[in-house]
Amino acid sequence: MFKVKSLSEAIQILRTTFAEVRTTPETLPINLLFNRVLARSVVSDKYVPDFSRSTVDGFAVCSRDTLGASDSIPALLQQVGESRMGEIPDQVLGPMECVYIATGAALPENANAVVMLEYTEPLQEGLFAIYKPVAPGGNVIQRGEDLAPGDEILRQGKRLNAADIGTLAAMGEQTVLVASQPKVAILSTGDELVPPGQPLKPGQIRDVNGVMLSAEVVASGGVPCYLGIIRDEKDVLEKAILAALQDADVLLVTGGTSVGVRDQLPDILARLGALHVHGIAVKPGKPTIVGDVGGKPVFGLPGNPVAAFFMFKSLVRPLLAAMQGGNVEEVAVPAVLARAVSSNHGREEFILVNYQAGVAEPVMSKSGLISTVSRANGYIVVARDEEGLPAGAAVQVKLF
Amino acid sequence: MFKVKSLSEAIQILRTTFAEVRTTPETLPINLLFNRVLARSVVSDKYVPDFSRSTVDGFAVCSRDTLGASDSIPALLQQVGESRMGEIPDQVLGPMECVYIATGAALPENANAVVMLEYTEPLQEGLFAIYKPVAPGGNVIQRGEDLAPGDEILRQGKRLNAADIGTLAAMGEQTVLVASQPKVAILSTGDELVPPGQPLKPGQIRDVNGVMLSAEVVASGGVPCYLGIIRDEKDVLEKAILAALQDADVLLVTGGTSVGVRDQLPDILARLGALHVHGIAVKPGKPTIVGDVGGKPVFGLPGNPVAAFFMFKSLVRPLLAAMQGGNVEEVAVPAVLARAVSSNHGREEFILVNYQAGVAEPVMSKSGLISTVSRANGYIVVARDEEGLPAGAAVQVKLF
Repeated sequence: MFKVKSLSEAIQILRTTFAEVRTTPETLPINLLFNRVLARSVVSDKYVPDFSRSTVDGFAVCSRDTLGASDSIPALLQQVGESRMGEIPDQVLGPMECVYIATGAALPENANAVVMLEYTEPLQEGLFAIYKPVAPGGNVIQRGEDLAPGDEILRQGKRLNAADIGTLAAMGEQTVLVASQPKVAILSTGDELVPPGQPLKPGQIRDVNGVMLSAEVVASGGVPCYLGIIRDEKDVLEKAILAALQDADVLLVTGGTSVGVRDQLPDILARLGALHVHGIAVKPGKPTIVGDVGGKPVFGLPGNPVAAFFMFKSLVRPLLAAMQGGNVEEVAVPAVLARAVSSNHGREEFILVNYQAGVAEPVMSKSGLISTVSRANGYIVVARDEEGLPAGAAVQVKLF
Repeated sequence: MFKVKSLSEAIQILRTTFAEVRTTPETLPINLLFNRVLARSVVSDKYVPDFSRSTVDGFAVCSRDTLGASDSIPALLQQVGESRMGEIPDQVLGPMECVYIATGAALPENANAVVMLEYTEPLQEGLFAIYKPVAPGGNVIQRGEDLAPGDEILRQGKRLNAADIGTLAAMGEQTVLVASQPKVAILSTGDELVPPGQPLKPGQIRDVNGVMLSAEVVASGGVPCYLGIIRDEKDVLEKAILAALQDADVLLVTGGTSVGVRDQLPDILARLGALHVHGIAVKPGKPTIVGDVGGKPVFGLPGNPVAAFFMFKSLVRPLLAAMQGGNVEEVAVPAVLARAVSSNHGREEFILVNYQAGVAEPVMSKSGLISTVSRANGYIVVARDEEGLPAGAAVQVKLF
């Protein structure tokens, strides 16, 4: 007999049970990397930059030649050339000489600093007045200052953003090894469910979870495969599960609001594979089931779309990230609760909120209608041993 | 002659100049809506739910029959039927009668509340003991409680998340009118730039902005078209701009680190269309140019990738959102600055930070290397009239 687990117990069971479940890595060209998870740490094999560069437009100088320069007594330097972009200048700076240099260009030999153009003035015959001293290294990026051979640039498991992709481009990478995206099959069950496009009869409702969970899978870096609504019968469900897992890495079964799946799925999982979690002390989300078939994770998510939404965020999303060797980086924003909320003692509770400028306004609805989540932009969690929270309480809002 | 603008002036100029620039809407099936922007508000044309439903498993009752029920003196009700999922029950509840009901099923006529299963006990021949009273409406969602005809469900301009898509599915929508994605052409210029795969000669650097900005365009809901590196010559640049804008809605020209583009782009824009911004008092990002050709926005972004990154976030991203009729929803997280930062008086300054658990650790680099941004997960802004911020200062971190 299964005991209801706490949410953190369920999360821990998932971590342990599926610790070895990983998608196989694949090599992708650099223009397809956005939001993919790095499958191997990238280490620098060169100096970046490979030459000392100016960070400003101005004159490359030897710092000591500008010592004591001021508006009243400028240093007078002779321009002996120009450092062109994309070349290493062949000039060697002599005493009291300078070279015009643009932002990003290479410093000539013997130069160790750059005076900004605005602190200089042309006098005559290539002679320039320098009105401000510059310290050694001033306005210069030294060779290897950003990266040297052996420096770790990006760590395995990082979800690649635009700057990461730019960094890989800067290193000269053309293709990169990333985790492939987990394929997630989604089955809706429930005799009261009607697919889009079909008219609703009295007592029937539309299947929301199929399309909602598909979008959540996309948001989690997976590839959804929505298999439609199946009848609420044991044989039908069992066959559909086995068929779905031929191709998919993960299966989500969502139960309409039907008791059938809640009753049958645990048995089917126990017989075909293993049942790991049967019920979670969380609101909403209690009738949640986790098992596996042939080592592939299978979730029985509640039919209530709001509960399915929270259980996806709490359980499925971290699993999909872990399967790619990554993490979900959730940021909590501190806020003040605008109104009191009551809560069920003994069950951790998710409260939807609308966060704005430091204030969290609870978005209440006793129903499981998904539009309630639409009206919110985040949620707070009330711990299982609290009876609620007063207005003005300090809370941490997790933004969607 | 153009005066350098403040960043907020530049943002205001963009808003005004391109206020009418919109992509044309397109109709998409519900499974392709994720992250798209709604082109028309969606208003309910029906009651949701369309019948009164139970939120728990239990017995549908008339509330007054449970009045005063307790562990010692339960109310005794006769079960007269079951409300099946997906049908409207045909029973009419008489006095001291109850009907078994599952979560989500419809209430029979005369029932106005549901007693949870755990507060009931079967006695004999369909008689049930009810150990707890339930108020009228208890554990029931009334017809139309979530939505009634005329209620606005989702507002035009909303970027659709999974819950929004679920809401549209719940309303029976099969296709939805959304803004089409702006096509953004990207041109890199700079004689020192080398494309991926080609060996680096001394003084040369890799083109980072092309691939980095392409990824940013994807992240902003646009479709990037990277046109490669072109030579830093006026005729070449002018032809390339005109060719790019035949197909694209927006053009980003990024200047390598070259002065050429900074010098030539303003003239070209003034001649072919209009020049709106030439230089912004912001660090990094000063050499930023905004203009238009035939009403299509053209940006000259700095060659320094960090500057290009910030100018994209500050100027291009909000424009791409506005072209879709939406907004960028940026959330700032309050934090304590771990170390002092100095800043240039007179220019607004972006400081990269690594935010963790309420602390913002500045990520410093004088170079424009994009890996600096990779090491950060957000940034703070130092106002133009401040000289810096002390360690321990309260800051607002904008997370990437």
